[in-house]
Order: sequence, then C-alpha cells, then structure tokens
Amino acid sequence: MRRFAVVLAGGSGNRLWPASRVDRPKQFLALGADPASSLLAATVRRLGSLEPLVVAGADHMEQVRADLPGLPEEAFLAEPVGRNTAAAIGLAAVHLSHRDPDAVMGVLPADHHIGDPAGFRAVVDRAFEVAAARDVIVTVGIVPTRAATGFGYLEVGATLAGADDVATVTRFVEKPDRATAEQYLRGGRHLWNGGMFFATARRLLAELAAHMPDTHRALIEIGDALKSPGGTAAAAATAARLYPDLPSISIDYGVMEKATGVVALRGDFGWHDVGSWAALADYRPADPDGNVVAATAVLCDAHRNVVVGDPDRVIAVVGVDDLVVVQSGDAVLVIPRQRAEEVRAAVAALAEKDLTRFQ
Amino acid sequence: MRRFAVVLAGGSGNRLWPASRVDRPKQFLALGADPASSLLAATVRRLGSLEPLVVAGADHMEQVRADLPGLPEEAFLAEPVGRNTAAAIGLAAVHLSHRDPDAVMGVLPADHHIGDPAGFRAVVDRAFEVAAARDVIVTVGIVPTRAATGFGYLEVGATLAGADDVATVTRFVEKPDRATAEQYLRGGRHLWNGGMFFATARRLLAELAAHMPDTHRALIEIGDALKSPGGTAAAAATAARLYPDLPSISIDYGVMEKATGVVALRGDFGWHDVGSWAALADYRPADPDGNVVAATAVLCDAHRNVVVGDPDRVIAVVGVDDLVVVQSGDAVLVIPRQRAEEVRAAVAALAEKDLTRFQ
Repeated sequence: MRRFAVVLAGGSGNRLWPASRVDRPKQFLALGADPASSLLAATVRRLGSLEPLVVAGADHMEQVRADLPGLPEEAFLAEPVGRNTAAAIGLAAVHLSHRDPDAVMGVLPADHHIGDPAGFRAVVDRAFEVAAARDVIVTVGIVPTRAATGFGYLEVGATLAGADDVATVTRFVEKPDRATAEQYLRGGRHLWNGGMFFATARRLLAELAAHMPDTHRALIEIGDALKSPGGTAAAAATAARLYPDLPSISIDYGVMEKATGVVALRGDFGWHDVGSWAALADYRPADPDGNVVAATAVLCDAHRNVVVGDPDRVIAVVGVDDLVVVQSGDAVLVIPRQRAEEVRAAVAALAEKDLTRFQ
Repeated sequence: MRRFAVVLAGGSGNRLWPASRVDRPKQFLALGADPASSLLAATVRRLGSLEPLVVAGADHMEQVRADLPGLPEEAFLAEPVGRNTAAAIGLAAVHLSHRDPDAVMGVLPADHHIGDPAGFRAVVDRAFEVAAARDVIVTVGIVPTRAATGFGYLEVGATLAGADDVATVTRFVEKPDRATAEQYLRGGRHLWNGGMFFATARRLLAELAAHMPDTHRALIEIGDALKSPGGTAAAAATAARLYPDLPSISIDYGVMEKATGVVALRGDFGWHDVGSWAALADYRPADPDGNVVAATAVLCDAHRNVVVGDPDRVIAVVGVDDLVVVQSGDAVLVIPRQRAEEVRAAVAALAEKDLTRFQ
C-alpha cells in the first residue's frame, strides 16, 4: 500500500494581510522559520519519501506549480472551483484509490509551520501505521502550550488496547471562550485540532458515502471517468461539470464529527498555525531588543516589534514598542502585536471604502 | 524700483524622510494645506505681482523648473554648487542690481506653509516699503504661538520713530532651551526668525562687502561678467569658476547678526515651517478621531495619528494612537507623533547599515 500526503494548498485568509491577499494566500508566503521558503514548499519538503498530492483551486494551480518546481505532474490535483475541504479530500481519495486501491492518505494543511520536522515525521509515520492496521481515521492532536481560543479542540478518551499512544476522540469542539480554554489546558483531555488526519482512501470514501452521499455520488462518477479510456482528462471534465454543485462543507463538519472510530495521536513538534503576524515571534529569532525583523529595516529605541517587509524596501521604526509593522507590495499595516488578529477589521474596511483592489 | 522675491529653493533636510530624500528635498513635496501643490509652488503663488527669482543648486534646477512651469527663464538662478544662503543671496543681489540698480529684494524660504496668504502679503508689502524708504534690512519676526525650541529668535527693542510697527532687532538668538523659550514667550520681546528679510540689493551687497569681503569680491567679478558682452552666460561661467571657493555660511551668521540697522516687522499669518511630520497636524484638517490623513488609508479604532502615503498605495492603521505613519516610495516610517523630529536618527541609522540608497 502506497502512502500519499495530500497537501491542501487551497486555503485563503486575511489574517496575514497585506502579505496575504485574495490572489496570494498565506501558503505561498515565506512565513515559516526559513525566510527563503514558502509555507507550502516547506510543507512538501517535510514529507520526505511520502508521495505528495498537492490539491488547490484551479485558479491557484499556476502559483502552486511555480512554488514546487521539482514535483512531477501527477503530484498536482486541481479543484475546478473551491468547495471546501470535504470535497477536495474526496476528490483526492478518488484519484489515489485509482492509483492504488489500498492507498493510505495523510491530509496535511499547507500553511502551518513545524519547528521539529523529525518529531513531526515520527508522528506521521505512526499515524500511517495505525490508519492502515486498524482501519480508523487518525487525527493528530497538538499538545496545547497555552489556553488558545483561536483553535478547535479534540476531546480524547481512553487509549486503544495494545496502543497506549492512540486515544479515541470523543468529541470535536469548536473554538472555546477564554475560560473554557483554560479549563481545557488544566484538564489535559483536550488537544488542538491541527487539521491533519490519516486514513485509507477506501475508508474515507466510505465515510463520505455514509455522511455526504451527494458528494460521494459525484466522486464515484469522477472515479468512473478516471477508469474510462479518457483517463485523467475525462475525470477533470467530469469534475468540472459536477464540482460546482457540491456542498461547500469542511471535512471536520461533514465527516469527522460524525464518523465513528476516530482516534488521535499526540503531536508535540513545534506546531504553529501562523495565524497572525504576532505568531511570527513564536519561532523567528528576535534581536536583543526583542524585535522580530523580516525586512530591510532600521529600528531605533524600538522594542518587541514584529517588522516585515519586502527586501527591496526599507522600514524605519523609531520609539515604538509591541507593534506589528508590515509592508508588502502596495500596502502597509500598523497594528499592536496584542491585537494582530484584528487585521481582519482593516481588510473588511477596505471593502467599505471601495478599496477592494488592495484586498 | 522693481520689487523682486528671491525664493531660496536650495534647501535640504531629513526631518520629513521618507518623503524628503537627498535628491528630493522638502520644498518639492506637497506638504502645505493644498495636497496638490508643492511648498515651492505654493510659495511662488503667494508672491502675487512680485517678480520671482528662484535660486537653487544646479543639480535641483530641473526639478525647480518642472515644479514651476509658468515662470519665464529669467526667474531661475542656479548656484553652481551649494554654498549656503549668504553666497546664494549675494548671487541673487548681483543679478537683480544688474536688472535694476535700485532693485529691492525680499528673500523668502521655499519650504514653509503660510495659512493666511493675505496677511502675509500685507506684511511683505510693508517690508518692501520700509526697506526701500529707510535703507534698512527688514526681517519678519513670527509672533510665537508656543515656547518653541526648534527655531532661532529675534530679540526686538524700541520701535522706529514714525513707524511704530517697526522695531529694531537688538539680537539674533540661537535655538533656546525649553526654559529660555518659555521665558521668551512670557517676555514678549522675542519673535521667531522665519528666515525672511527685505533690503535693497545695493544695501545687501554693501553688507556683504563689510562682513564677507571675499565673497563680495567674487560677486563683483560675476557682476562685471554680467555687464560684459557675454552677459548671463559669462556670469554663469565666472560663477562656476569662483563659487566653489566661497565660504559656506548662512546669511544670518555671515551678515544679519553683524549688520546694523536691522529691523523687524511682526508676522502673524499662520506661519508653519513644516519642520516635522507632526507639524502637518497644525494646519491639515483632522477626521473625527483626530487623525490627519494624507493617504489612501483605512483606520480602525485609531486616534490622533498622522498618516501620509502615496495615493496608489494603501495604509491600514488599527488600534494605535498618536503615531506618525508615512509611506513614500520604497520606504515606510513609524514613529510617535511626540518624537517625530527623531526621524533623523533613523536616517542616520540607514547610513550605518549601508542603506544610504534609501536616504
């Protein structure tokens, strides 16, 4: 059975505006520890010998290919239009089970940073092993380091017989409020939902059949096209026809929360979701004044700022503390580090002022 | 006797970096009340029927002409190299007395903003009148509105007989410390030195002969060339030969502080020296949150900021107060409003980091 890594590169988001834009989402930005590599390229590099299948919207596929110059054509799979993760993963499952009916797939977001790639690989190897041996869906629950309110959580129960590193997932929990998050952190029974999971393609398609039958029917038709003389091209044409009508539902909501036999491994490998500019300071080194600088910049009497800019521009920061200052292309953002997630308010305000060209 | 306005457009400065640069000084920027006009163009527009003579370094002359498209060729005078204001004004005086031996000249900086142009014109008219009638050097002392430490002061004494709006200048005072500035403000005998003064060309040349004889000798030689068949071209060649050896001394230091019979008119016409980004807030209207915005910008929960940017870029400012945020070309500046003058530290730091290309 071949092991595939399905890398979901179709995301968007505006918490990293102005570097991330509608047509240049976060995964294409060099926001990990390596300022020379996009998050997507770093994700694929982390996969080692796993066979990658990078899934993205057709409109982003050119960027994806440019970002991953070493990969063969079969490593790319385009969604005709964006229909959220359940459809995208189903589409990947159909293609992978066509290549190998016993394929096992690990689904990985393309826009996270991982500080300990070796630790990550160990967990991933174990996840493939458990998914294949026990025919379960294996998620990775990130061991919380703080009472985060920005993530969903996995509530875990007893460990499996004969596998005390594998716990059953008793519940998927939405983003909690502060008090609940603190309770979770103390209780030790909650892990962050890092959006990674592992299963055989067969099992995933069975779950889709059970919980999202309309989507599953479309996928069967795409799979039939794949097996037809038209092959990949016929499948693409079928997908282009059927995909727009699929419901836009996340895999968590559409499948995982309803599936039985979902288990979790604990992940403790320096995971970061790069969810805001302030997050950069969690894994980029700071100067002696605590400033994290990813820019051509001069700082005078400035402390604990996050400063990001295009290398051929310059940013001067004088006499301010705890700010995020970002220049990217034609836009500049200034926001307190503590409030970095509120950049969404600014992006929303652009629309109100008829400045959507900057979104 | 013809009345000329000698507009000194040769200045430089870095307190308005990054809009002002080594090769684009402040006078070329639209920093007055009118966002469509440079300070220089606004200065010339204020002159009314006075004949302008715009003096600037040869290396800035192209920018000067581009900024003042309506002026005739005789309205421009190039300094071969920058040698400060004493030499530049002497050069202007030589040219103007060649045009009219009885010329009266008013010397005006090109990089100030004046809120009440009619009030300004009234004072200027009176200054020409007094300078011509009494053969004195007339300065304009700006009536202080606060205990400024960033300006030189004129100390004034008794008024002239028969002209109670004209006071003798008893002393030129360097920039004072805070306590002294407060004493000046209370005392009422000190006015800001706005760098404007008025005299006949003849009188100015006589003062140069008395206090800067080397400079005066060079000016005489340039004047002789002007009278020669070679005319303007011969004068330019002579200036190019002699000018580099002239001392680089300000008119205040070289002449005004030593001259006798210097008098002052009081100027109270909304004068601003546009000395820093924070100064913009003194005469540009603010939004309801106190922000002064000269940019394409969105502000969310932001108060009393000064935001300046190129119109085809966007600046988003979220959750911060009392900051200056400036984007200009390839550079961004963030600095507290209270500390806006410290931008010089940032510009100096650029040199230390081998980033002089951004200066």
